[in-house]
Amino acid sequence: MSIRPYVLTEKEFMNQEELMYPFEERGLQFGDGVYEVIRVYHGEHYLIEEHVERLYRSAEAVRIEVPYTKEEMYKKLDQLLQLNEFTGDGKVYLQITRGTAPRDHTFPEGVTANLYAYVMDLPRKVEWMKQGVSAITQPDVRWDLCYIKSLNLLPNVMAKQAAAEAGSFEAILHRDGSVTECSSSNAYLVKDGAIYTHPATKNILHGCVRIRVEAFAKKAGIPFHEQAFTLDDIKSADEMFLSSSTAEVMPIVEVDGDQVAEGTPGTITQKLQQAYEEDARISAEQSIFSASGKKALS
Amino acid sequence: MSIRPYVLTEKEFMNQEELMYPFEERGLQFGDGVYEVIRVYHGEHYLIEEHVERLYRSAEAVRIEVPYTKEEMYKKLDQLLQLNEFTGDGKVYLQITRGTAPRDHTFPEGVTANLYAYVMDLPRKVEWMKQGVSAITQPDVRWDLCYIKSLNLLPNVMAKQAAAEAGSFEAILHRDGSVTECSSSNAYLVKDGAIYTHPATKNILHGCVRIRVEAFAKKAGIPFHEQAFTLDDIKSADEMFLSSSTAEVMPIVEVDGDQVAEGTPGTITQKLQQAYEEDARISAEQSIFSASGKKALS
Repeated sequence: MSIRPYVLTEKEFMNQEELMYPFEERGLQFGDGVYEVIRVYHGEHYLIEEHVERLYRSAEAVRIEVPYTKEEMYKKLDQLLQLNEFTGDGKVYLQITRGTAPRDHTFPEGVTANLYAYVMDLPRKVEWMKQGVSAITQPDVRWDLCYIKSLNLLPNVMAKQAAAEAGSFEAILHRDGSVTECSSSNAYLVKDGAIYTHPATKNILHGCVRIRVEAFAKKAGIPFHEQAFTLDDIKSADEMFLSSSTAEVMPIVEVDGDQVAEGTPGTITQKLQQAYEEDARISAEQSIFSASGKKALS
Repeated sequence: MSIRPYVLTEKEFMNQEELMYPFEERGLQFGDGVYEVIRVYHGEHYLIEEHVERLYRSAEAVRIEVPYTKEEMYKKLDQLLQLNEFTGDGKVYLQITRGTAPRDHTFPEGVTANLYAYVMDLPRKVEWMKQGVSAITQPDVRWDLCYIKSLNLLPNVMAKQAAAEAGSFEAILHRDGSVTECSSSNAYLVKDGAIYTHPATKNILHGCVRIRVEAFAKKAGIPFHEQAFTLDDIKSADEMFLSSSTAEVMPIVEVDGDQVAEGTPGTITQKLQQAYEEDARISAEQSIFSASGKKALS
């Protein structure tokens, strides 16, 4: 997980050790910023347009002016990989804050945004994707505007930590029993051959992989319903999975200690995993289907 | 508003220019921290015990270990004023984050908290307190745990900015018409001689000045009801005010462009302002009642 040396900023590329922030940075004092995590396979960004578009939508929602045009951003993000001679599997973390200014809730005048982006290695979670992971359920205590990918992540941190302490991969968040999403991924339930997930309202992040999952499902003729499911529905689910840029399409085989159906990755989940690998041009050697997985699908 | 040179950290006092943070600081990437703003009058902290107690409660709620014992904290905060030879009116900003660590939602292992505190001048808002201020109303879109004074302040920033753009001092937040508090202060309504304010649930910050306002009211025999009021109630309110460590007891004389009652600070509000000045040992020269104000009370 080591960070590669060159970091993109709003001004130039810097060595990561040179990039430091004063204590009156608005990200540090207000979480006043937005971010993206972009997956990289074989040295190429995956779903780069979806991420860049969402970054600008998030920034616009909180009225932060992104210091680059979209065209410049694409170019800079390519340069980030090139400068670091990054050819493997990894992720880019990119954040933009409202800038550095004397602490005051209101927007500072004459201040421009701070931006940084760095790249690091991130191997695919191949074994987990084959076997599935466990999850716990947690109340969703986040703010009302989760479609903005903001730096206000304390409730996500607390939920994810609760999951980790329970030996689980993720926390499934719910409002009064209705599942919204997970702490850092979207959540899906499969019942009678159809996929259910919370509608893309302001209450959930509109995941970039979620967009692809919907496309994969439609292409495969699998009904995809933007309809929230409940904690009760989980008890009779045929399959469950989550999706995110770092977890890809990940089967959930256990929730709060109870198996989901038979406790193994489901057929529809595996079909979506395979579609993901094809879409992301995962090489055969890296495929989760390279060994036993292929058989399970046939 | 200039910051005095010496800044307290978790390790030692530093010159403010020396204190810089790397980009993988958890405050900067997750808003993973808590804070306090402590008022200083004549070089002395006001309500220091209330603030320190709340700081530890906030930190405990998000499971951040404060790097000092309470006794050490009191001593260090005194030293902060002494080292800076601070004898005037000001405020101390103090924040604690979970520390510096490679980005991952879960708590990092073996990492200790980052702390910093600095002091700056802050004159009393004497004219505004005499005349009252205007406010706007905004939906409360914050998370469910606002009793934790966390660094997740983006919704507060957005609401305060909306107020500033409307030429107002504050934004009164409401959930479905029921007023919770303001973007950075508690909100109160006076009707038929009694004070109404949202109960100290998990949905609002338990203001240190709010504790004193309740005590002032009780001492003066003014009924103090922890009972939420609505946007409709504002239309027939006798008085309104807000309280915070930096705004003290501030009359609200206009809401969304409509006058509150006669559009001037009310009698009960002024009684609480006077009680505040006595409690904080404001000198006669600095009192908002030094000129015309006194008369209005008699």
